[in-house]
Order: sequence, then C-alpha cells, then structure tokens
Amino acid sequence: MDLKLADLSLLADSFFIFLSAVLVIFMQAGFALLEAGSTRMKNAGHIAAKQLLSFSIVAIVFWAVGYGFTFGDGKWIGTTNFFLSTPAEAGSTPIEISFLFQFSFAAVSLAIAWGGFAERAKLSVYILFGALFTIFIYPVIGHWVWGSEGWLHELGKQDFAGSTVVHLTGGVAALIATLMLRPRKGKYNEDGTVNTIPGHNQVYSVLGALIIWLGWFGFNPGSTLTLKDGFFGYVALTTNLGATASVLGAMFMAYLRKQKLEVSIMVNGLLAGLVAITASCAFVEPWAAIIIGFIAGAITVISASFLERRGIDDPIYAFSVHGVAGIWGTISTGIFAAPRLVEKVGVGSAGLLYGGGFHQLGVQTLGVAITILYVALASFVLLSIIKSIVGFRVSEEHEQIGLDISEHGSYAYPEHPNHLEDAKIKETEVSKTPLSEEAIYAKA
Amino acid sequence: MDLKLADLSLLADSFFIFLSAVLVIFMQAGFALLEAGSTRMKNAGHIAAKQLLSFSIVAIVFWAVGYGFTFGDGKWIGTTNFFLSTPAEAGSTPIEISFLFQFSFAAVSLAIAWGGFAERAKLSVYILFGALFTIFIYPVIGHWVWGSEGWLHELGKQDFAGSTVVHLTGGVAALIATLMLRPRKGKYNEDGTVNTIPGHNQVYSVLGALIIWLGWFGFNPGSTLTLKDGFFGYVALTTNLGATASVLGAMFMAYLRKQKLEVSIMVNGLLAGLVAITASCAFVEPWAAIIIGFIAGAITVISASFLERRGIDDPIYAFSVHGVAGIWGTISTGIFAAPRLVEKVGVGSAGLLYGGGFHQLGVQTLGVAITILYVALASFVLLSIIKSIVGFRVSEEHEQIGLDISEHGSYAYPEHPNHLEDAKIKETEVSKTPLSEEAIYAKA
Amino acid sequence: MDLKLADLSLLADSFFIFLSAVLVIFMQAGFALLEAGSTRMKNAGHIAAKQLLSFSIVAIVFWAVGYGFTFGDGKWIGTTNFFLSTPAEAGSTPIEISFLFQFSFAAVSLAIAWGGFAERAKLSVYILFGALFTIFIYPVIGHWVWGSEGWLHELGKQDFAGSTVVHLTGGVAALIATLMLRPRKGKYNEDGTVNTIPGHNQVYSVLGALIIWLGWFGFNPGSTLTLKDGFFGYVALTTNLGATASVLGAMFMAYLRKQKLEVSIMVNGLLAGLVAITASCAFVEPWAAIIIGFIAGAITVISASFLERRGIDDPIYAFSVHGVAGIWGTISTGIFAAPRLVEKVGVGSAGLLYGGGFHQLGVQTLGVAITILYVALASFVLLSIIKSIVGFRVSEEHEQIGLDISEHGSYAYPEHPNHLEDAKIKETEVSKTPLSEEAIYAKA
Repeated sequence: MDLKLADLSLLADSFFIFLSAVLVIFMQAGFALLEAGSTRMKNAGHIAAKQLLSFSIVAIVFWAVGYGFTFGDGKWIGTTNFFLSTPAEAGSTPIEISFLFQFSFAAVSLAIAWGGFAERAKLSVYILFGALFTIFIYPVIGHWVWGSEGWLHELGKQDFAGSTVVHLTGGVAALIATLMLRPRKGKYNEDGTVNTIPGHNQVYSVLGALIIWLGWFGFNPGSTLTLKDGFFGYVALTTNLGATASVLGAMFMAYLRKQKLEVSIMVNGLLAGLVAITASCAFVEPWAAIIIGFIAGAITVISASFLERRGIDDPIYAFSVHGVAGIWGTISTGIFAAPRLVEKVGVGSAGLLYGGGFHQLGVQTLGVAITILYVALASFVLLSIIKSIVGFRVSEEHEQIGLDISEHGSYAYPEHPNHLEDAKIKETEVSKTPLSEEAIYAKA
Repeated sequence: MDLKLADLSLLADSFFIFLSAVLVIFMQAGFALLEAGSTRMKNAGHIAAKQLLSFSIVAIVFWAVGYGFTFGDGKWIGTTNFFLSTPAEAGSTPIEISFLFQFSFAAVSLAIAWGGFAERAKLSVYILFGALFTIFIYPVIGHWVWGSEGWLHELGKQDFAGSTVVHLTGGVAALIATLMLRPRKGKYNEDGTVNTIPGHNQVYSVLGALIIWLGWFGFNPGSTLTLKDGFFGYVALTTNLGATASVLGAMFMAYLRKQKLEVSIMVNGLLAGLVAITASCAFVEPWAAIIIGFIAGAITVISASFLERRGIDDPIYAFSVHGVAGIWGTISTGIFAAPRLVEKVGVGSAGLLYGGGFHQLGVQTLGVAITILYVALASFVLLSIIKSIVGFRVSEEHEQIGLDISEHGSYAYPEHPNHLEDAKIKETEVSKTPLSEEAIYAKA
Repeated sequence: MDLKLADLSLLADSFFIFLSAVLVIFMQAGFALLEAGSTRMKNAGHIAAKQLLSFSIVAIVFWAVGYGFTFGDGKWIGTTNFFLSTPAEAGSTPIEISFLFQFSFAAVSLAIAWGGFAERAKLSVYILFGALFTIFIYPVIGHWVWGSEGWLHELGKQDFAGSTVVHLTGGVAALIATLMLRPRKGKYNEDGTVNTIPGHNQVYSVLGALIIWLGWFGFNPGSTLTLKDGFFGYVALTTNLGATASVLGAMFMAYLRKQKLEVSIMVNGLLAGLVAITASCAFVEPWAAIIIGFIAGAITVISASFLERRGIDDPIYAFSVHGVAGIWGTISTGIFAAPRLVEKVGVGSAGLLYGGGFHQLGVQTLGVAITILYVALASFVLLSIIKSIVGFRVSEEHEQIGLDISEHGSYAYPEHPNHLEDAKIKETEVSKTPLSEEAIYAKA
C-alpha cells in the first residue's frame, strides 16, 4: 500500500480540524438561541432566522474573497487565493478544510456583531453589513494578527484562538451598531431612569450558551491545528477552567452588588470566561486560567451595568461579553504567559509575572488598541453608507409590532395569547387564494 | 507492537464513519424540532415524542433485516447478513460501524416521510409504517442504487449521499401519505380558498434546521467512507456552498413573488439546498454547487406554493423540500458532473456541460423515475393495508383537540393559557389514586 | 520525521477520548432541558441555569481534588494526583484528556442527582452539595469500581461505563434528597390521593433526551478508551439496541397498565435503556442488549408509579430512571455476560446464562448494595450538614411563586400571560436608576 505514516498523520490532523470547524459552525445555533432568548417574543423568529441568512452570506463571501484577504500573501492585506484558487501544498491540510475552519470563525465574529443590531435593525442591513464585514473588517484584523506576513503577528502578538480577532472585532462592531441605532424604544424613560427589558425565554439563553460552550471545544483546541503532542487536550483544560471560573466570578460580583443572581448574568459569565481564555488558553497555566476567567466574569457584570447606565443599550451585552472580556483576555496573556508554554507555541514572549517585563503586555495592548480603532472606524463608515442607501432602523411602528411581523409577515409563536387575535386576522387576509377545481375536489 | 499502518488507517476511517453516523443520528432531534415547530401547539408533544418511537423501531428492524436487504448479496434485493450475521472481512470497516452509518440514513429517510403524516395520523400508524418502510421501501431503493450488485448502481447512477435514496424516497412516501390522509381540517375553506396554518414555534424550526445542517456534515462528507486524500473536506465545502446558496435562492424567489421573507421559507431554503447538493457534492465544482443550491431553494418555494394551491396539504412541505429538491439534485449531477471528480469517485460519467452528452442525465432521470414509481406504489399498498387494519387518520374530534391529548393524554404545554382550564380538570381525574398509610405519613 | 506509528496511534486514541468527553459534556444541555421541561414553568429558568453553576463547580473541584481521589493511588481512596500534578507516562493518554473524560462522567452523575432537588431546593444547596458530592461521594464509588487498586475492581465487578458508578450513584443521591426535601406542595392531597404535576414543556423533554442520547455515543463507546479493534463500534451497537428496545418496553408496559402512552414515559423509557445497557454494553450479545433494554423500560414505568403512590415525589423520576435501571443494568451483566466478550474486556467472568454460575451475579449484586449503602449514607450526612447551615428547602411562599423569581429575580418567560402583570411591576421597581447626563443625551 501507498499510504505513508506522514500522510496518515496529516489526515488525522485534517479530520481534527474539520471536526473542530463543525463544532464551531454549530455555534450558530447557540447564537441564534442566545440572542432570541435574550430579547422579546415579538422579534424571536426574525432573530433566529436571520442567523440562517447571515451564515449563508458569510459562507459564500468568505469563500469568494474573505479567505484570500485574510490568509493570502501580502503585508497589509492578503491578495491571493480568492475562490480558494491555490490548492494546499503537498503535506499540508487540504485547503477546503482550512477554509471551513477559518470560515467558521468569521461567522462567529459576525454573529457577535449582530447582538448590537438586535430588535431594531432592518433585515436588509443584515444582508449588506454581513457581506461588508466579511470583506472589509474581519479579514483585516485576521490578516494582521494571524496572517503569515501580518504585522501584528510579526510583532509577536499572542491571540491563540481569537479573543481579539474574533471576539473583540465582533464586539466593537456591535458597539458601533448599537450606538448608531440608539436605544430600543422603552429602554430609557423621560426622567433618565432605565428599564429592564427582559429576554423572553431564559431556557433558550441557557441552551444557547451551552451550545456555544460545546463549540468552544472546537474553537480553542482546534486552533492547535494538530493532534501532535496532544497539546489540544491542555488547551481544552485551560478553556474549561477559565469558562467555569468565570461563571463563579460573575455570580460573585452580582451577589456582591445586588444579592441577586440573575440568569442572564450566569449565562454572560460563562461566555465572558470563554472569550477571555481564548487568547491565552495555550500560553497560561491552569491556575492562571482560573484567575483570568474569574476576573472576566466579574468585570463583565460591571461593564454591562456601567454601559446600561450610560445610556448605551446593548441588548444582549455583546460588547461587555465579547469586547471587554476580549480585551481583558488579550491583555491577560501579557501578564500570565508562561515561558514553557510560550516556547511550545512559538509566538511572543513570557508575561509580566514571569519576568518578561512590559514588552509582551505592550504588544498585546497595541493589538487591542489597533483593533478597536480599525473596527470602530470601518464599522462606522460601512454602516453610514448602508444607512444612507437602505436605512438602518425600522420605523417606530414596526419596532412596536415587532420584526417578526414587519420583516417576515408572521409571528414566531402565533398561538401565543397576545397574538391569537392578530393571527386570526392575518389568516383571513392571506387565505384569499382561489383553489383550482382539482384542489376543491381533493379536499372534499 | 503489532499494530500496522494499514490497521491504524482503517481505525481512523472507522472512527470517521462512526462520528459521521453520530452526527446523522442527531438529525433526529433536528427533525423533531423542525416538525414540531412547523405545526400547531396541540400536537407538539406528540410530534416530538413520536421521533423517539420511530427511531427505536428503525434501529431494531434495520438491524434485524433492513441492513441485510439493503447491502446483502443479491441482484434485486439483498438476502444475506440479517442480524449483521456476517462479520466484516479483515481490513474492512467493522460491520457494526457500517451498520450504524447506514441505519442513520434509513432513519433520516423515515423522518422525512413523517412530515406527510403530521397532525392527523394515529400513533399506531407510526409504529406499523415505520417498520414496513424499513423493510420494504428504503432497502429496495438503497439496494438498487448503493448495493454492490444493484442494477441502478451498475448503470452508473450517481447519488453520492442519497438525494434519491434517502430524500426522494422519504419525500415520495410523505406525498402519498398526505394525499391519502387528505388535508388537515381547516386548511381549505368551502369556497376553495386556502388558509395558512402557521407553525407554533419558529425558533424550534430554525433550531431544528441548524441541527439538521450539523448532521449533514456527517451525511455528505461521511459518505466518502474514508479520510484518504482528505476528499471529505471537498465534499463538505460543496455541501456548505450549496446549502447557503439555497437560502439565498429561496429568499430571492419569495421576495420576487410576495415581497415577503417568511421564516419558513428561509428554513426550507436551507434544507432544500442540503437535499439537492447531496447527490452531487462529490461530483461538481464549487461554482456548480452554488448554482445547484440557488435553484433548489427557488424551485422549492414554487413547488410548495403550487402543491398548496392544488389542494395538497403537505404540512411541513416534505415533498417540496426533499422530493422536488431531491429530484433536482439528482438530475443536476447529470448536468454538472465534472470529469476530474467523476474519475476520482469512480461512479458514472461526466455531465452534459462537460460534453458527457445526455447519457448520465438519462441515467439520473431513470433513477428518479423508478424511485418515484416504486416508492409511491409501495407506500400506497402498505398504507392501504395499515388503513384497513388499524385505521389511518384520527377522528375529527381527536384532530380538533389535538394529538397530544388524544394519543398521549397530556398537553405539551399544560401551563399555556389555552390549556390551563383543561389541565386542571385533568389533574383531578387522574389523581384519584388512594395512597397507602406510609405515603400519607411521608407527605406530612 | 520523528513521529512513530505508536505515537500516532496514541494521538488517535486521545482524540477519540477527547471527542467522547465533549459529547458527554454536552449532555449537560440535555439534562438542563429534560429537567426544565419536566417541571413547572415558574422554575424553568432556575433549573436550566443551575446547570451552568453546578457544572462550573464540578469542573474546578474535580480538577483540584476529585480526579485524584478517584484515580490516584491508594486502596480505599486515591491520595495522589491532585491538581493533575502527575503527568501521564510516555505512551499514555495525556492527563488533561483523561481528566476531561472522567470529569464529564462526574458531572453527569451530579446532574442526575439534581433531579431529586427539583422545584424546591435553595440555590445555595446546589453550590454546596455540588462541591461535596464531587469530593466525598462520586470519587469513592469511582475509586472502588474503576480505580486500579479499587477493591470492587479487584473482585471483578463489571461496570463498563458506569451504570453503577455514574447512574446509581446519582440516582441514590436524588432519592435521599427527595426524601429529605419531602414532596412538592400540591403533589399529594389531604385525602391521600396523588396529583399529577405535569412538566411545562414536553418538547424540551424530548430534545433533552435526544441530546442525552447523543452524549451516550461518547459515554459508552468512549469507555473503550481506544480505537483498537474497532470494538467501540460494537459497544455503540449494543448501546443503541438497548436504548431503543427500552422505549418499546416502556411503551408496552404503559399500554398494558393504562392504555395510554404518555410522552414522559417514552422519554424515560429511552433514558432507562441507556442507563441499563451502560454496565453491560461491552459484555453482552446484541440480542441480550435488546432484552436488557426492554426490561429496563418496563420496570422503570412500574417503579415510577410505585414510588409515586408511596408518597415519594421524585419530580423527574431520577431514581426510577437512573437508580432502578442502573441496578438492573448492573445485575443483568451477571446474567448475560458472554465469555468471548468477557475475555476481550478482561474484567470479571461469564454470566449465569453461560454457565458462569452465581459468582459474577454475586459480585454485581454486592457492588450495587455497597453503592446504595454508601451513597445513601453519605448523601444523608452531607445534606443534613448543609441543611443545618444554610437550610435546604425554600419557604412555602417562594415555592409558590417559583424559584425563578425567588432565587434569580426574574421569570423565565416574562411575556407569558400569567407573568405579564408581575413583570410590569418588577420593571418599574428595577428601573429607578438615575442616568448620567451623557446617558440622557445618548438616548435622545
């Protein structure tokens, strides 16, 4: 037989990357549930279904140009390998599999951004911004940090699985969107007080978070891109410790502040921990993962409350969970990166705690700052263009009746008592389609 | 050590097939949610739970006889390997793993068929038809197309992962069932107009579709049955492009026709693309996958509307999504099959576009026609027999109150306002079970 | 290149164990849905979210001490390898991966125990008992049965994937908890009659069960810990046959008793079959798996009804499903263990049916008895201590309004008609947070 050991090893790695991609792709279901559950009933069908739409756009656009921009040759941006035109070299992972893995990350980044659009952006905005984000925003940060010639990569920026590239990018885009869209009707009162707008289904939110957690076992361990040394297991361990410590950190902070453990805080605590540990999972010791996670959970609670009081209505706290925890996660690597692990991974240098001084911390901070600046600017420009062409926010009336009806023509739960009356009316309107003779016969 | 390279390669492939089977098995959850979400609240528990029942029947019947009929030796039908009695040859995938993979496909085919039974068939019909379908319907088509001596296989029929074998078979059975059952009460009015009967939970439908999508990463890539060459990655790429293009195709067509983007159309668009690309995923170029998917989404919208107006009430559009897209997917292979890929896979010949002439197209069309004829006839006969023995459709009264109560004795959502009154009454009736003395003591 | 065949084989096995762990971890989502769906609406958010909390506690505590207690060196209990301090030997699975797999099992065992706490235990109890169970209960049984020096292991106790260690342990803890907590308000009437308290969402229950089923394809096949021989496929086959036969067994018994096929019975039938086949999946023939499963389903129905009539209110039947089926599954191995498979696995001896006499049956029974005694005693002591410190059951008033409000401050479904009034009131109270000037500006 012809198969060589190296071939089989490559295939095993390819299978590993493929399965990681599949797990990350399934995170779309998690985001759909998390976002739908954390918002109101009248928008639930719209929010869930737009995930199908946005994922479809990323799939095709990232295949056509996004992957080339991100991983093609070029200093500032990739300019080769559009439409996956360059097959992988012999002995490398097949390009289709590399693509699927990277595409799944881009799709997550966009899914995060959508949080800032929730409950008031037009459906057409999802189509346009989805495409533009996949062309002009994600690939730029991706290329700088992960591209083989990327300038942040060459500086030694540590971002193992994308606290910056995926999460901060998505979180900043969400923040700009939510600032430009302004708060949801009813979020703030005339007298400056804040209303809670509770999500309509906490079980969806929890299930969504658990599905996202599942996906993270592809996200971080898969980013080793190889089974070799079994290092992916180590990455999975730190990821899990960071995430779980963050649940406890968020609960601790919530209890401290309000003696109340809201379900949304437990959910966001989990996600914040996953976000924060994503940069550092391969660079830090297990105990450090616990500290990083615990702090991530705690600061997310503070950040969410702080922004809300400042009049920033981020419906599912996308910036606090993915942006703030993404920043902390990226910077924490500059503190906790252990020499033995830095050497293993081969990116950057040891953190502050290990005598690495402020060098790595500085690189990490620079990466964060650049990402915030670029993504904020690009999002603002692109959304302004979109706004001027198709508009951005639905009408007050449409927001009031909900996007399920206004954008899709039907309720998510037509048998819900609030909707039964309307549903009946709607039925009658829709039904005036005369049947053919055969049809009448058939239904006899 | 004794392990040889070839052994390890075989084990890796076995693991790959096993995991693919697991992903496809999980599609049962997707079908349960999709079908429950797309129908009314009063039938939701019944619809979800019958999936457990039907899956259980397929598992045991396909192990006992279905697998032997499908893959055993024999020209027209397999007649060996019942109860998996023949172990795999040395150097082949263990038979248990081949079985699990093939069983997961048979279970999907049946899950598709159930769409046509929704909201009005008796529970006993699910038991009987589930068993008979697994014995007399699926294995026949499976053997003809995929059996090593199957006559359609020998003609060079291209159906990589089952647009015909799995989807068209299930879709035709659904069509026959829905024709025989006649429309749901309330679907058509006296004057020949059509009522929309909206599904009760669009979030379930979307989540179901995303779970089914997840499963498809086992369905199509797993059908390569090997990691070798990493070709499974290519198959995953075309699958994903086809599916996502189909979402856009369905939305395009829906917008063209009604300027309205219903959630159900986005969901069905996704599924139709997955169905269509299933035959061709290994035979066509990525650009062709996009065309095939886009068209699949568009024609599914037309087909669903066409059948509805003709008096055919297919509650979750099983025939349009799995039948029509299955036909299109199978035939499209005869158009787009690329010589380099046909050679790689080693089944059939190049398509019309590549100068293959009408030969492959003819074979594909023949396969489709034969499948429709056989499955329609067999379904009709078997359902007629079932009807004459246990009946087919529940009584009008039972349909009115819903199958949750009539077939299972309890509501899916007993605390829903519509049911609270009934639920209370029911409680009292059920509760007249005297407790023993200890029990009374215990509850003090 | 340096990679050797043995290395690659080890990595492939490690990947297999890792993925099995990931599937088992995802069972947490299944338990969250199953438990939330099978209980009342007013507790749904609490029940789902406490899964995040309890999983987080197990993750950190099992890493710190639980793993060492279970798998460390020592006759009665492990006393080494706390904090995973001992790296795996060369040529063994990396310790992080072994840990993740074993941790996922401990988390399942605890998830089972929570069933007995449902709808009335304080949130703080989940924190405390979660930690104590992971230190003092699970590791003890785990060490005795699976530890390399464990005394039950040395006796030849057969418990392939944990019918005893995981399920019986969790089930007995649930029973003790439910006995100590006493029945839910409203479960029993003054006159000694029993009320049905139906779960609020059967679709969640079914989806939960299907997710748990998915996880079981990691649970049992993964317990082979190797791809070698492809034996994991055999284990998956018997698992699937046992589970599906149990659905039929439960339905058969339910029909016999009441001519009614409740959805909860179908769900519990499935789970009982999975539990029962877990001990024996590697030791028995496929036909025996079907018998074991069918009986498991049938006796679970009887047990659930029996306990309910005796005044024991086990809200989601945790003891009947995991305890009773766990006992039956463990003992059944002593009857059906086939010599060829016992030899392959290398634990214990053949069962009664194969002329093994009562020896293996005796060992199995001893293991069951010891587990029940130890877990019951330890649970009672630990829960008594917890009760004396923080209390155990919420106040009557809190139970009445539900734990979503009392423990977390918000409803799971705030837009549900029953809650709309309260939700509005709550909003106003929460909202009295004065905004800063900028905020007022921002919301303009």
